[in-house]
Amino acid sequence: MSTPTTRALSGKALAGVIRQRAKDEARELENEGAHPSLAVVIATDDESTHWYVRSIERAAEAAGIGCRVIDLGHDATEQVLANVLRDLSAEPSVHGIILQTPLPGGVRTDALVGLIAPEKDIDGANPLSLGRLAVGQPAFAPATARAVVEILDHYDVPVAGRSVAVVGRSAVVGKPLALLLLERDAAITVCHSRSGPLERHTRPADIVVVAAGRTGLVNGSHISPDTVVVDVGTNVLPDGSLVGDVDGASVNGIAAALSPVPGGVGSVTTALLLLHTVEAARQQVPLLENA
Amino acid sequence: MSTPTTRALSGKALAGVIRQRAKDEARELENEGAHPSLAVVIATDDESTHWYVRSIERAAEAAGIGCRVIDLGHDATEQVLANVLRDLSAEPSVHGIILQTPLPGGVRTDALVGLIAPEKDIDGANPLSLGRLAVGQPAFAPATARAVVEILDHYDVPVAGRSVAVVGRSAVVGKPLALLLLERDAAITVCHSRSGPLERHTRPADIVVVAAGRTGLVNGSHISPDTVVVDVGTNVLPDGSLVGDVDGASVNGIAAALSPVPGGVGSVTTALLLLHTVEAARQQVPLLENA
Repeated sequence: MSTPTTRALSGKALAGVIRQRAKDEARELENEGAHPSLAVVIATDDESTHWYVRSIERAAEAAGIGCRVIDLGHDATEQVLANVLRDLSAEPSVHGIILQTPLPGGVRTDALVGLIAPEKDIDGANPLSLGRLAVGQPAFAPATARAVVEILDHYDVPVAGRSVAVVGRSAVVGKPLALLLLERDAAITVCHSRSGPLERHTRPADIVVVAAGRTGLVNGSHISPDTVVVDVGTNVLPDGSLVGDVDGASVNGIAAALSPVPGGVGSVTTALLLLHTVEAARQQVPLLENA
Repeated sequence: MSTPTTRALSGKALAGVIRQRAKDEARELENEGAHPSLAVVIATDDESTHWYVRSIERAAEAAGIGCRVIDLGHDATEQVLANVLRDLSAEPSVHGIILQTPLPGGVRTDALVGLIAPEKDIDGANPLSLGRLAVGQPAFAPATARAVVEILDHYDVPVAGRSVAVVGRSAVVGKPLALLLLERDAAITVCHSRSGPLERHTRPADIVVVAAGRTGLVNGSHISPDTVVVDVGTNVLPDGSLVGDVDGASVNGIAAALSPVPGGVGSVTTALLLLHTVEAARQQVPLLENA
């Protein structure tokens, strides 16, 4: 008797493919005389945030995409942040804007994200982007939410007519992912810490996406055989290592597939920020082909 | 052996309570020197639409709320509609705006609803309203979606920690209702015509809300005993009579409760448009109490 094998849904190869698409598109835009460019606004001393922003910078550079990091310091006021976001939204040479969290205490993130021009909102932070997704208008989804869909597509996991349970109701993953998958004809269940026993919702699902931010929240007892599990969690342990929301050891051998952390959804997310930037640039730059 | 009784979740008494609340609040606003007022923009010859708008007008009048109907005719252009919506959004004496469908052919409803000032968007038509609901910012939900929540509240049907299946994924009911109920700590499943067998999603649910626009879509075979069923359907039969999406005869005796059509959700919806208007006016009119 052998234990069934749980397939690892690595995001690394897919991230490479998406980066290459972004690079090719960036080159095409350059040939048309446009220079796709991204701005990241940061206002924190947090080291891991700076590390993350540098990784975006490096990835953008490697793809031929301009990346301007605007570091306003940990004591930036809401007014200063607002002015910068307004300027970047109006600046024709910037095609994508990321407002990096965390922000200084007392600053209203809600008020600021609404200032990011929707056509430059490449991480779907402006509520208008979420609303447009909901009504089927063109908009950028948060890159993490789209990363889940791209991983399912990459591994040929069908979603139309199937039942997807999303654990977590955040505006960054749970809700936009539900909207993206509804658009793909899935039935969507969104459950969370207050919606009763998790397994009531996760066991009947064909696909379970976990985005709750709690280490080991989902284990083998929550999953039916042959379920596809996507782990969106990125929890930093005291020793600095990164783990997801899924107890991989207990899910392996039960689930049909599981995305690893690290090396799963996260790898794809950064690549999608680049792809969104060139997509945004393509929409903002008038086509020159027929000129 | 007796057949269990299915409780009828009539919306009529509740609609009366909500109308009275709107009336009381309108009177208070008048006492403070403000005159709450609603504008309905219409551009169709459709008789039932005119009938519906007159019913809003009468209800507003009875509640002491001003109601201006702006009939632009069935051949109104998008430009004319856009100008009117911009003017009303900027007009301080108007606190609520409804853009009534259907609109003339070729007119892009999507583009127009985005012109309704969010603070006056009392029927949650602007995608920004939906996005704000999704991120927990203050916004008006579509009145029909809120009507479902109000009916559940009125009949003391708890939603926190319970499982709600919403049949239908429209931007007017399914999606905003999912957001409202997630906010209330329910687990939400959204299913639809392409998400596979309905009963897979409706049978395990504690509450089933049907908003698909298909006569008789849900019958007794889709429902478990003791389920609470809310019927949002409003289908006009060839003989002119109004029926919901639920086959009441077959659900009665199985469900714990069922909202009737007519006399259920629909009655509450119009009342909520009035309540939203006074709520909008309250937010837009500076408080005079402390003056």
